[in-house]
Amino acid sequence: MQYTFQVTGMTCGHCERAVVHAVRALDEEALVKVDLPTGQVVVESEKSRDAVATAIREEGYQVAA
Amino acid sequence: MQYTFQVTGMTCGHCERAVVHAVRALDEEALVKVDLPTGQVVVESEKSRDAVATAIREEGYQVAA
Repeated sequence: MQYTFQVTGMTCGHCERAVVHAVRALDEEALVKVDLPTGQVVVESEKSRDAVATAIREEGYQVAA
Repeated sequence: MQYTFQVTGMTCGHCERAVVHAVRALDEEALVKVDLPTGQVVVESEKSRDAVATAIREEGYQVAA
């Protein structure tokens, strides 16, 4: 499934990598694309949208519902 | 010696840790204190001021002369 999230709190490349790694820790085969200026995060994963959102939140970023 | 640097480009805790680690990679006994909101970085190190500034710059941040 492909999900698009609006994520706030990512300020730099470290944050971008932290989000990518958080999603990959949940699903190592996930594809994750982050647009840092807009905060848009596109994820292709077999996991649920909620599970992916939770992984991003647990990394310390806000995900719009 | 104790040095104070004005560093720009640090936006988050990841950046703060990246700067601390960059200085510690140069001098593992260095004491590094970062004030993220102001960008002020205070370093106690046996290394030269120039060497410390270079380590911070090589991590990708700007250090005022």
